[in-house]
Amino acid sequence: MLINCVAYQDGRKLADIPKDEISNYITRQDCFVWVGLFEPSAAELQEMQHEFDLHELAVEDASHGHQRPKLEEYGDSLFVVLQAVDLVGENLQVGEVEIFVGLNYVLSVRKESQRSFQSVRTRCENEPRLLKHGAAFVLYALMDAVVDRYFPVLDALASSLEQIEEEIFEKNSAQSNIEQLYALRKKLMLLMHAVEPLVEATSKLAGARVPRMCIGMQEYFRDIFDHLQRIHAAIDGVRDMQTTAIQVNLSMINLNETKVTKKLASWAAIIAIPTLIAGIYGMNFKNMPEYDLPYAYPTCIGVMLVLDLVLYRWFNRIAWL
Amino acid sequence: MLINCVAYQDGRKLADIPKDEISNYITRQDCFVWVGLFEPSAAELQEMQHEFDLHELAVEDASHGHQRPKLEEYGDSLFVVLQAVDLVGENLQVGEVEIFVGLNYVLSVRKESQRSFQSVRTRCENEPRLLKHGAAFVLYALMDAVVDRYFPVLDALASSLEQIEEEIFEKNSAQSNIEQLYALRKKLMLLMHAVEPLVEATSKLAGARVPRMCIGMQEYFRDIFDHLQRIHAAIDGVRDMQTTAIQVNLSMINLNETKVTKKLASWAAIIAIPTLIAGIYGMNFKNMPEYDLPYAYPTCIGVMLVLDLVLYRWFNRIAWL
Amino acid sequence: MLINCVAYQDGRKLADIPKDEISNYITRQDCFVWVGLFEPSAAELQEMQHEFDLHELAVEDASHGHQRPKLEEYGDSLFVVLQAVDLVGENLQVGEVEIFVGLNYVLSVRKESQRSFQSVRTRCENEPRLLKHGAAFVLYALMDAVVDRYFPVLDALASSLEQIEEEIFEKNSAQSNIEQLYALRKKLMLLMHAVEPLVEATSKLAGARVPRMCIGMQEYFRDIFDHLQRIHAAIDGVRDMQTTAIQVNLSMINLNETKVTKKLASWAAIIAIPTLIAGIYGMNFKNMPEYDLPYAYPTCIGVMLVLDLVLYRWFNRIAWL
Amino acid sequence: MLINCVAYQDGRKLADIPKDEISNYITRQDCFVWVGLFEPSAAELQEMQHEFDLHELAVEDASHGHQRPKLEEYGDSLFVVLQAVDLVGENLQVGEVEIFVGLNYVLSVRKESQRSFQSVRTRCENEPRLLKHGAAFVLYALMDAVVDRYFPVLDALASSLEQIEEEIFEKNSAQSNIEQLYALRKKLMLLMHAVEPLVEATSKLAGARVPRMCIGMQEYFRDIFDHLQRIHAAIDGVRDMQTTAIQVNLSMINLNETKVTKKLASWAAIIAIPTLIAGIYGMNFKNMPEYDLPYAYPTCIGVMLVLDLVLYRWFNRIAWL
Amino acid sequence: MLINCVAYQDGRKLADIPKDEISNYITRQDCFVWVGLFEPSAAELQEMQHEFDLHELAVEDASHGHQRPKLEEYGDSLFVVLQAVDLVGENLQVGEVEIFVGLNYVLSVRKESQRSFQSVRTRCENEPRLLKHGAAFVLYALMDAVVDRYFPVLDALASSLEQIEEEIFEKNSAQSNIEQLYALRKKLMLLMHAVEPLVEATSKLAGARVPRMCIGMQEYFRDIFDHLQRIHAAIDGVRDMQTTAIQVNLSMINLNETKVTKKLASWAAIIAIPTLIAGIYGMNFKNMPEYDLPYAYPTCIGVMLVLDLVLYRWFNRIAWL
Repeated sequence: MLINCVAYQDGRKLADIPKDEISNYITRQDCFVWVGLFEPSAAELQEMQHEFDLHELAVEDASHGHQRPKLEEYGDSLFVVLQAVDLVGENLQVGEVEIFVGLNYVLSVRKESQRSFQSVRTRCENEPRLLKHGAAFVLYALMDAVVDRYFPVLDALASSLEQIEEEIFEKNSAQSNIEQLYALRKKLMLLMHAVEPLVEATSKLAGARVPRMCIGMQEYFRDIFDHLQRIHAAIDGVRDMQTTAIQVNLSMINLNETKVTKKLASWAAIIAIPTLIAGIYGMNFKNMPEYDLPYAYPTCIGVMLVLDLVLYRWFNRIAWL
Repeated sequence: MLINCVAYQDGRKLADIPKDEISNYITRQDCFVWVGLFEPSAAELQEMQHEFDLHELAVEDASHGHQRPKLEEYGDSLFVVLQAVDLVGENLQVGEVEIFVGLNYVLSVRKESQRSFQSVRTRCENEPRLLKHGAAFVLYALMDAVVDRYFPVLDALASSLEQIEEEIFEKNSAQSNIEQLYALRKKLMLLMHAVEPLVEATSKLAGARVPRMCIGMQEYFRDIFDHLQRIHAAIDGVRDMQTTAIQVNLSMINLNETKVTKKLASWAAIIAIPTLIAGIYGMNFKNMPEYDLPYAYPTCIGVMLVLDLVLYRWFNRIAWL
Repeated sequence: MLINCVAYQDGRKLADIPKDEISNYITRQDCFVWVGLFEPSAAELQEMQHEFDLHELAVEDASHGHQRPKLEEYGDSLFVVLQAVDLVGENLQVGEVEIFVGLNYVLSVRKESQRSFQSVRTRCENEPRLLKHGAAFVLYALMDAVVDRYFPVLDALASSLEQIEEEIFEKNSAQSNIEQLYALRKKLMLLMHAVEPLVEATSKLAGARVPRMCIGMQEYFRDIFDHLQRIHAAIDGVRDMQTTAIQVNLSMINLNETKVTKKLASWAAIIAIPTLIAGIYGMNFKNMPEYDLPYAYPTCIGVMLVLDLVLYRWFNRIAWL
Repeated sequence: MLINCVAYQDGRKLADIPKDEISNYITRQDCFVWVGLFEPSAAELQEMQHEFDLHELAVEDASHGHQRPKLEEYGDSLFVVLQAVDLVGENLQVGEVEIFVGLNYVLSVRKESQRSFQSVRTRCENEPRLLKHGAAFVLYALMDAVVDRYFPVLDALASSLEQIEEEIFEKNSAQSNIEQLYALRKKLMLLMHAVEPLVEATSKLAGARVPRMCIGMQEYFRDIFDHLQRIHAAIDGVRDMQTTAIQVNLSMINLNETKVTKKLASWAAIIAIPTLIAGIYGMNFKNMPEYDLPYAYPTCIGVMLVLDLVLYRWFNRIAWL
Repeated sequence: MLINCVAYQDGRKLADIPKDEISNYITRQDCFVWVGLFEPSAAELQEMQHEFDLHELAVEDASHGHQRPKLEEYGDSLFVVLQAVDLVGENLQVGEVEIFVGLNYVLSVRKESQRSFQSVRTRCENEPRLLKHGAAFVLYALMDAVVDRYFPVLDALASSLEQIEEEIFEKNSAQSNIEQLYALRKKLMLLMHAVEPLVEATSKLAGARVPRMCIGMQEYFRDIFDHLQRIHAAIDGVRDMQTTAIQVNLSMINLNETKVTKKLASWAAIIAIPTLIAGIYGMNFKNMPEYDLPYAYPTCIGVMLVLDLVLYRWFNRIAWL
């Protein structure tokens, strides 16, 4: 579905143009066309391939989808794949953004992601001074927007870890903790898969030898590169703590097992001792003088209670109860 | 066993040719010969070595088999070893594909793999525009076919992990989970061993300094390289989650042990309390006034039941039962 | 908040100058201005951007804050972000220090950190010989001060590990150990996040190709680089031991569980044996000759005691009790 | 002990020569001498140092022994240390092979390894075409022989892992499994220590800038390099599975503990229930009408049996028994 | 404390010289001075800084101490920091050795290490042929001496691991094993921290571009580099086995827990069965015909014994006892 098709000149919007006039505009000096597609059909992609003379392999990747993030040069043009990661309820939704960039065109393709790039377009149109850089600035703005959306996701994961941490030394929460830790791991992996390949790809736009169209924009792409490194380090940090948390959780489970065994042992003793005494006074020997003593029974019960009290205190003191 | 022996010129099939005319064709300008062998005998390999003037060490590797994936240059020719990984029922079958490529010949050798390369040949013959690139395009098409077959294998492993994940927090499935996790690890290793060495090998065909025959084909090999990186990252992801799953499984086993111990302790208490009371009233003291009370017995049984009910509720409330 | 604004010439302080005269001084030969800000407002930052002609992206980073440590070149100027880590009670407080350096200015911005840089200024003014190097020496002195503060933090973490180690083979301290080990991990991560990116950044100032303003200062920056490597290696060491300690802790927990089970088993046996004997002599068979023996009862009790004594000693000898 | 001392010319054996004529032969054009020593005395080594003008440090290494595998250039000569790993019963025997190679000599020293290099000599003498390459080919042949012997060792380790895997999900084999897994780890380490440093060393003989004497032999050394990489990857694979197997073993041990606890609990219940009933009917209340019922006793026993049958089935159904 | 101050010329000792004549000797051609200090005071260091014109930062590092091993170039001079690791009883003592080397001086500073360098001095003076290389040879001899002392430490750690291994599959030694494994880890870390940074530093003296004074000595430094790599690999090996040993230890602890539980269950059954029977015959039903049988009591006891014997054998057969 075609969302927008706009021609820009000298940092300013010229006009919304129909698709079939694209080729007229992209040959003009200082002019570039930015087309935005949303989940395009094969036919739409083919049309664009024709208009912009896109490389067959790049278009194939875009129509297949499910690419890992990457940046590929085809002659003077770039093909960039990004993953848009959004938080939908408790889950992460991973969409795909493909950007074809030439000296005077940008074709952005958005898939499985509900958040449009309208705000990016608005930002670009509001900064004519920067938009003068042409297609490369649009590429920057699009990448910046996608990468900026990683931060709230990361924050959500980090606070989810913090929530687990608060409960990890509580007993009785081991099972829910371990389930949450596993779910957290999965989300971290998803985010990492979006970020990791992008770090290297972005570094190609920020270094000394960048594609021709990006010359003069290195500091901007370095900014994205820096954000990505920050996210990468933060994910690594959360991952490390999550791994430690799983180990701690296992320790807490085993510690709890010991506590239960101690409790079991304590109560077993408290019950077994009077049972033994009762057993002894249930013996049928003829000659058991206690049997005839007048206060034998209450005394016996008294002894049982005293012994149990002593045991109870003892187990309490050694923290088995 | 010789499967095919075909000469191509200018992107089109010339003719099926007999083995002994190979040398006539490979000296012609713009012409190349593509021979397909299946589990060749030593004699067949030697014949081919003679026809194509293959390097002794490469032929030795091909006759020994069980090579790891690799790409070796011998002067102007390439020797490529790939592992074809197929899903046969629950198991992975690893076959071997060896490809000798020169400026005007391709010799593909297939071993222990039932899936033929006929579809690759058909694809090549249907794209004369690309087949004009000569032997290098055939190499690309063969590698692409082998690598594309990794994806369904990877999907099977990923969905096998998902299946385990669904059961991992269920009790009573720990043993089958751990067995499946171990089996999954073995399969991941097999696939990784097919993919990992290939990533680096393929990068040699996609970079700036490629073998002469591959000049102009870099973007195609980069496409394979990209697929391999995607598979590599995905295997890493599954492996990471599998490692976490093993830890989680251990935690669940220990958690379950605690639950069993709690159950044991609860029922032990529920049985031991009335046993103790019965023991007390089994004592033979002469002077136990309860013995003569008319409703002593039912009262006693009643007290036992009430105590057990209280215990049962208590254990229920603290989730020990 | 503006803390200082001083002009220096030839290694000596010229004068405290008002903000709006900065531009007069930074154009003079051999003169540089060092401005110190503390948690500046957006307006203050913008003013400085104007005075020093700072790069937009650097200022944006400085106003956003929460950057990871980094060193970025913008033309002839540098933008350095450091994290100031201080020990506040048991916790680590992470502040941020941003330094903009040009050939004849230094702008240092301090955030969320209570320890001022007054001592650095004093040190610089006391070493006119070194201050002659200009802004680069101030950069060195600031970085050196921040990095030197990592050492007491590291020492605190190391001695916290040592304290845990002293208790790790004690029983009954498993839970507090594991809590402390987890907390230690978190602090190590914080410190590592401050140090790790800085190692690489600092190496850029110590190598063969350094920014123009740092020429002649490489050995000083190499000194910082060396300190950072030392801290990095020490953190790694603590981290490694902490990981081992968590494993050891788990082993101790399980070992303790075994000890509890052994104790439980021993006492259970000591109670169960006389209970069994009492049960036997509670049987109602008519023909039990022991019942009528005169010393049967005390003998029976004696046998119980002897058996228990034997058991007790036995369990003691095999160290179950 | 001197094993052989032979002069070769133009790929063919000239003659067995006495030690003191070595210097005559190694100055001839196209001629080289190959001396084989077995556990040489210090005196023998010194003699050889004199004859071949070997570097002091290399000879020192050779006389000390216990070197790690390495390849060192001393001017135009090479000093290569290899570890010969052989399977002796269940254990690995690690011998040492040191090779001094110059343009026209090879001195091979074998230590603590019973397998001689006679077969290598025979192979070389049977291939005069290749032996024409001179000392470098002998070096290749020796290295190839040592490296080829790693494969059966590796196979033995891999099949030892497979054997463990077959038993890992069986109960009652946990202890022997863990012992075997530990022993396997030790052997893997030994083999890895022989292989790992050699991978890098061999790559120096296979690359673009090789020592002068090895020019033209690169493809042969690349073949060894490739074998080493294959072994390296295989060891890594076995190691990874062994690590997983240790974790799985731990899970199985814990799972088994739970099973034992469940069995214990089940049988405890089956015994405790009738014990409780017996206790109740051992009470001495006067007014217990059951005591006088004619079939009370068999009914009571019947109730006990029925309850136990119900329990037994129940525990069977929930798989506790 | 000044230990030695000697001038050498042409590989031979000239004379012991007083400190204040150093400057006279180090300006002579082919002459160099070697000063040895032991735990010098600040004043002594300053004096030396003056005599040899040492770099301020290097002297500062030397006076602070607690540096990590490193090698730094200051113009034409080198500053080398080594850690001397010695075995003192069961513990490792880490001393520090700092070496300042110029074209015609060596200043060696030894701290917290009791083993003097007198033997190194003797060795040097006994090899005039090598000592002709000047200060670089002394640096080599000092480094070689320090590194050679790592070997006995390493051997001690390795044999400490072997000792643990002998006991690891024994029961009842789990706690002492785990304590020793932890202590071993700490020592491995200490040694690793001495070795690891040195590997890289030494490689700088063995490669193609070495500091001017070391030209012609590369093969000697490569020898040290090789020793360091050997130690590094050996530490890695011990560390890997130690990690495995901790896991094995945990498995053994859990296995032992299962054994204890099995023993507990077996004896519980052996006691509970006769207790149940005794309970049954303690019931007070009027109509229990066994009560009046003449041999009921001994038969009952007999049945108890037989049942227990059967149980005992059964538990023995399934190895629970």
